[in-house]
Amino acid sequence: MNKLLVFQTDFGLDDGAISAMEGVAFSVDFDLNIRHLTHNIPPYNIFDASYRLHQAMNYWPEGTVFVSVVDPGVGSERKSIVAKTVTGQYIVTPDNGTITHINKFIGIEEIRLIEEGTNRLKNSELSYTFYGRDVYAYTGARLASGTISFEDIGPVMNKDEVVLLELYGCHDIENGVMGQIDILDVRFGSLWTSIPYEKFRQCGFNLGDDILVEILHDGTKVYSNMINYGKSFADVAINEPLIYMNSAYHMAVAINQGSFSKAYGIGTGKDWKITMTMK
Amino acid sequence: MNKLLVFQTDFGLDDGAISAMEGVAFSVDFDLNIRHLTHNIPPYNIFDASYRLHQAMNYWPEGTVFVSVVDPGVGSERKSIVAKTVTGQYIVTPDNGTITHINKFIGIEEIRLIEEGTNRLKNSELSYTFYGRDVYAYTGARLASGTISFEDIGPVMNKDEVVLLELYGCHDIENGVMGQIDILDVRFGSLWTSIPYEKFRQCGFNLGDDILVEILHDGTKVYSNMINYGKSFADVAINEPLIYMNSAYHMAVAINQGSFSKAYGIGTGKDWKITMTMK
Amino acid sequence: MNKLLVFQTDFGLDDGAISAMEGVAFSVDFDLNIRHLTHNIPPYNIFDASYRLHQAMNYWPEGTVFVSVVDPGVGSERKSIVAKTVTGQYIVTPDNGTITHINKFIGIEEIRLIEEGTNRLKNSELSYTFYGRDVYAYTGARLASGTISFEDIGPVMNKDEVVLLELYGCHDIENGVMGQIDILDVRFGSLWTSIPYEKFRQCGFNLGDDILVEILHDGTKVYSNMINYGKSFADVAINEPLIYMNSAYHMAVAINQGSFSKAYGIGTGKDWKITMTMK
Repeated sequence: MNKLLVFQTDFGLDDGAISAMEGVAFSVDFDLNIRHLTHNIPPYNIFDASYRLHQAMNYWPEGTVFVSVVDPGVGSERKSIVAKTVTGQYIVTPDNGTITHINKFIGIEEIRLIEEGTNRLKNSELSYTFYGRDVYAYTGARLASGTISFEDIGPVMNKDEVVLLELYGCHDIENGVMGQIDILDVRFGSLWTSIPYEKFRQCGFNLGDDILVEILHDGTKVYSNMINYGKSFADVAINEPLIYMNSAYHMAVAINQGSFSKAYGIGTGKDWKITMTMK
Repeated sequence: MNKLLVFQTDFGLDDGAISAMEGVAFSVDFDLNIRHLTHNIPPYNIFDASYRLHQAMNYWPEGTVFVSVVDPGVGSERKSIVAKTVTGQYIVTPDNGTITHINKFIGIEEIRLIEEGTNRLKNSELSYTFYGRDVYAYTGARLASGTISFEDIGPVMNKDEVVLLELYGCHDIENGVMGQIDILDVRFGSLWTSIPYEKFRQCGFNLGDDILVEILHDGTKVYSNMINYGKSFADVAINEPLIYMNSAYHMAVAINQGSFSKAYGIGTGKDWKITMTMK
Repeated sequence: MNKLLVFQTDFGLDDGAISAMEGVAFSVDFDLNIRHLTHNIPPYNIFDASYRLHQAMNYWPEGTVFVSVVDPGVGSERKSIVAKTVTGQYIVTPDNGTITHINKFIGIEEIRLIEEGTNRLKNSELSYTFYGRDVYAYTGARLASGTISFEDIGPVMNKDEVVLLELYGCHDIENGVMGQIDILDVRFGSLWTSIPYEKFRQCGFNLGDDILVEILHDGTKVYSNMINYGKSFADVAINEPLIYMNSAYHMAVAINQGSFSKAYGIGTGKDWKITMTMK
């Protein structure tokens, strides 16, 4: 193992929770290289956890162990799993949909159920609300350090039984394509859609084209305008909108040095659809 | 030493302060493993610093050196100390109450006054407002790296003279117990009380009981309701309140997937008391 | 090399961007020691990036490689450079003014243009909006790990051609000095000015003096009051203002345990001037 252990949660950075998780892991092995994906996943938002995991994971080396804890069902009967990707990375997580994007875009080789009898921090049996510390950080640390093997986690789980979220993807429409607004480039307010670059290109759009962008909220049109398709923000003037391919190779909509999301009150998720069509 | 050095401050993460502290420490020893507890302690809030330190510290290995800098008295005559716990960990901090929880719940073995003549970053004598960098990070790094020993810090301080905050703890009342709302599980808005799990259990409460919870602000009742005592959030419906044992083994009150603190405008500290009684 | 690699951006910590940069770097070399200066530079604010870099960099050892990505011109013709300081540190950054403070206060020994043909993450050629990951993190990692030398970055650039921001510095006025409000001590709301401590002292001010402070916004006086010059916050009562030398050895104005910036609505940048004069 390369000793890389990456944490992601919705716990924020304001209290001692993440540090307790780190302490548990270093108590397993001083030499772990613990890193942080983000701890600012919106509370309980499993879709975002799944998305961010995929956004980052592609760039990490084989053998890296990810621990992702967005766990609204903590203390319930929801399962705890470790998934191994076809690229040789591991995800320690509650079985609640967190591996959805990884499953679709990278591929899962095998999933094992965490056997809590052997994979739980000593003397934490009374604790029911912090699996991130008591089970996931502990198990991730033992796996990343080589203390246990993937096989020691517990029995193989039928891959068809893992919880997956529904992904909208994108659909052909007349003269263009419809997708969902998946997530924001939070700091800059850009809209990241579920429309892949290849699909967009197959529609016949070219750099420099003016494209009709319409945004629907619960089926109601809330935005409709022609927007230029550029390589990057610098292709348009400050405060001008543009369509571009984002760093995750999907189509996005932004305002150069402004926030598209704030300017037009646009949100994310299954209620927010976007179309790009030739006029 | 295990080379683990953990920083906690109220400096936030928006500027170069924490990085300057890291730079000072790595200039002492490249091989230090510097970690961050939290830098979002509310400004000047020594109680929260003391609480978070204890929340995390329990989970870190022997020999870990903590540097905690919430220092409203920087530049005054307040002392600078290193406390060694009975569990063999170290806390480098201003002597202002930061070790209160550690002292009560873990135990202090010995305290030494930092001799600034020998334990101050070279050429920083003119600097009066950033002890975190000039004295605490520097001293913590030298201790964690083994450059100096605990004895090299300076003279032993009489433990009775260390500054400690008053802790409310909890008190028996008719049919139940009264505590203080110590702190929030910030991201989720749950109320973490000063009532230990064992004390709560001694009152005769059992899982599944409906318990009368009353909250007093400055002696005035601001909340009164029956709340179910569950193992975890998943024991109640979304948006329902529950009493549970938190991950620090004290009693807490939450709304499943909501914020109890925001819903009822509840704060923390000595003006906020809470009672749990059988009806 | 000491393997220290320090990232600074305006990307925030809410998504997977920083983690993707880390993954790229660890894929170059598992043994890198990756640290984070801040990722909360206000979006597109090159001045703040330049300032924070200088604020922290002084305290890091020789050989440390900094990657600073505040890059409003990403995808444009702006150049990508690596600057080597006279103190033997490196800055990987877009050529947009980010090295302004380092150039003035530390000194640049040599600048090289990044040859993107050889210094770009494999298979990232299609990506135009995330140079931080595809070019800067990758190049910084290769430099910090010793995979490439400074000479391998690309051709030497004429130092006179590097983009620099204009710095106001400070100017003599009758009975005192005028400077700019450069930046805030964000968490505490203190005003950090461009007036160096030595200059202030040359005006004849001494500890304990009451000094007339006037603040001008776009030339209009928005604050005028006598403020005491103290060593540190503790020299004045809580909620009292003071002038002090900040941890970057420049003059600053604060309210003890309050926010001067919020109390009087004071901002930063070239439109905000401040004078300190003897009455």
